[in-house]
Amino acid sequence: MVTIKDVARDAGVSVGTVSNVLNGGRVSEERRQLVEQSIKKLGYQVNTLAKGMRMQKTDYVVVILPNLINPYFALLLDELESALSAIGKQVLLCLSNDDAKREVTFMDMARQNKVDGIIGVTYSNAQDCMIDHMAFVTIDRHYKAHIPCVAGDNWQGGWLAAENLHKRGATNLLCFMTMSSMDSEVRKRRAGFTEYCMQHNLSCDSVELSEKQICSVYESYGSRKLINSMLKAYVDHSIDGIFTSSDHLAAIVQEELEAMGKRIPEDVQIVGYDGLLFLNQGKPIVSSIRQPVKEIARQTVQCLSELLSTGKAESVVNIPVEFQEGPTTKPLIKENHVI
Amino acid sequence: MVTIKDVARDAGVSVGTVSNVLNGGRVSEERRQLVEQSIKKLGYQVNTLAKGMRMQKTDYVVVILPNLINPYFALLLDELESALSAIGKQVLLCLSNDDAKREVTFMDMARQNKVDGIIGVTYSNAQDCMIDHMAFVTIDRHYKAHIPCVAGDNWQGGWLAAENLHKRGATNLLCFMTMSSMDSEVRKRRAGFTEYCMQHNLSCDSVELSEKQICSVYESYGSRKLINSMLKAYVDHSIDGIFTSSDHLAAIVQEELEAMGKRIPEDVQIVGYDGLLFLNQGKPIVSSIRQPVKEIARQTVQCLSELLSTGKAESVVNIPVEFQEGPTTKPLIKENHVI
Repeated sequence: MVTIKDVARDAGVSVGTVSNVLNGGRVSEERRQLVEQSIKKLGYQVNTLAKGMRMQKTDYVVVILPNLINPYFALLLDELESALSAIGKQVLLCLSNDDAKREVTFMDMARQNKVDGIIGVTYSNAQDCMIDHMAFVTIDRHYKAHIPCVAGDNWQGGWLAAENLHKRGATNLLCFMTMSSMDSEVRKRRAGFTEYCMQHNLSCDSVELSEKQICSVYESYGSRKLINSMLKAYVDHSIDGIFTSSDHLAAIVQEELEAMGKRIPEDVQIVGYDGLLFLNQGKPIVSSIRQPVKEIARQTVQCLSELLSTGKAESVVNIPVEFQEGPTTKPLIKENHVI
Repeated sequence: MVTIKDVARDAGVSVGTVSNVLNGGRVSEERRQLVEQSIKKLGYQVNTLAKGMRMQKTDYVVVILPNLINPYFALLLDELESALSAIGKQVLLCLSNDDAKREVTFMDMARQNKVDGIIGVTYSNAQDCMIDHMAFVTIDRHYKAHIPCVAGDNWQGGWLAAENLHKRGATNLLCFMTMSSMDSEVRKRRAGFTEYCMQHNLSCDSVELSEKQICSVYESYGSRKLINSMLKAYVDHSIDGIFTSSDHLAAIVQEELEAMGKRIPEDVQIVGYDGLLFLNQGKPIVSSIRQPVKEIARQTVQCLSELLSTGKAESVVNIPVEFQEGPTTKPLIKENHVI
């Protein structure tokens, strides 16, 4: 079988140049023509080449995360690094800080075969930068149909949050989410939550803050003020149970409610999402739906391995999640609820 | 000037093979002889070659950290990634989990010129694996004399901890440290602390747990029991101010003391080290000496840049630190203390 090296030799250029031509990287018009002539002359099929190129292992896998300020991403990276190193791969880290340009730079590296694959928790719309034979596994986020997505069972997480608030005495529920405008598994949290409420005739309001507000929510006083005024409105409306899209947001909600004189969990119970522990090792920060971080990392790396060896892999979006009891909910009520 | 490529061409091997020969990488005996003959024949000096090789930029910098469970390391990595990407370098992540073997693997990559340099927070004794022309910058830890070390002003940190406990009314002090057996800047925390106590005629006891206990301190019941019994002894001895080597340890000390019925800060004040915030963005977890993480990252990357361009760089171990008021100390007493 003819290799990419033969094309390079025939065209009198480097393998990298051939790779750039095939993958849309930068290359002079003159060299492009030389390469294209050689490809034609030798009768290579681009598919074969693309596959051959993927076999040129670099042992590097790009991991794209928004930041490491959020402890959830730090824990995920810790587990991903461990799972990747177990199969001889090394993490090339990209912290996007929600800057799509940075993500695209790293995708270009994959395009140029400088890395074996990409694992991404991305919020930008980098879809157009992806090429079809790129080994890409996304966590939570949805891209093109053939790109496998790995996630916890977010629908079940939402359901469990509502069920636990209900079984601990809350009847007037609020679903309080920060949400990316991108299509992602995370949206199912709300669906599971409201489905439980519907089936159990519970009152359920819903607030959704846009992605832009997610980014600034922890720093900007403006966002805090927005959260504060929304909570004020709902709490006056006798809400006694709140489900938030993250533990971060749950902690802020708790702080704001306590500043209003509400007691947590006596007056209002809160269930967050992620299952963060104090300093990552102590007690739960809030009652929460615990993300199966280790299992998410394991399945993600397995997906990537399959992609690298067979060229395809299935999405896994039903990794079981659990309710983790913390200081923001009351004890279970000992009567039988219909679930 | 003759380049490494000329040697490779003359010997009929790849540049990588020449590099391996020069840097002790794996190479067959036959090829090694070919390369050595060419080096001799062309009259190259290894120094020139070594320097030339370092100029072969890969844009990858290995960052070695123990783990990302400790939020301090996650924040440091976040800042290092940002500072490195600003000069066009990408982070190749190595989480050692205090396993020296993993660190050595990554140092081998540097040896083989697969990366531009290494930034390491390491606790293992990987000194023997370092070669002299490796671009290596260490944070906190001391290696060979020519390897630059970047750190906050740990001595000042210890001094500030004692000064603040003193100025807030504590007079019977304890320095409670987990400490690596390796030589590091961190040791100066205790020196600064005890120096302040000496100069102010304050009673000052000291406990030091070995590195092995650091690793297990947060999980193992045995370690907790050890900490507990030590604290019990000292608290009976009317200790009213404790300085710990980390916020992590401070939080454990607080928990154990509260379990013994002590009120924090009324009965015992605690000052930790690192300056961690609740979920990395909220209020201080404990009163602490805040590490200047952003500045440590900036200076580390600057050191590495100097090493890469000039071959040498000076250590920077006096980056100013600050006392950060949190919930584990009392307010300042309003009299004049001689400092």
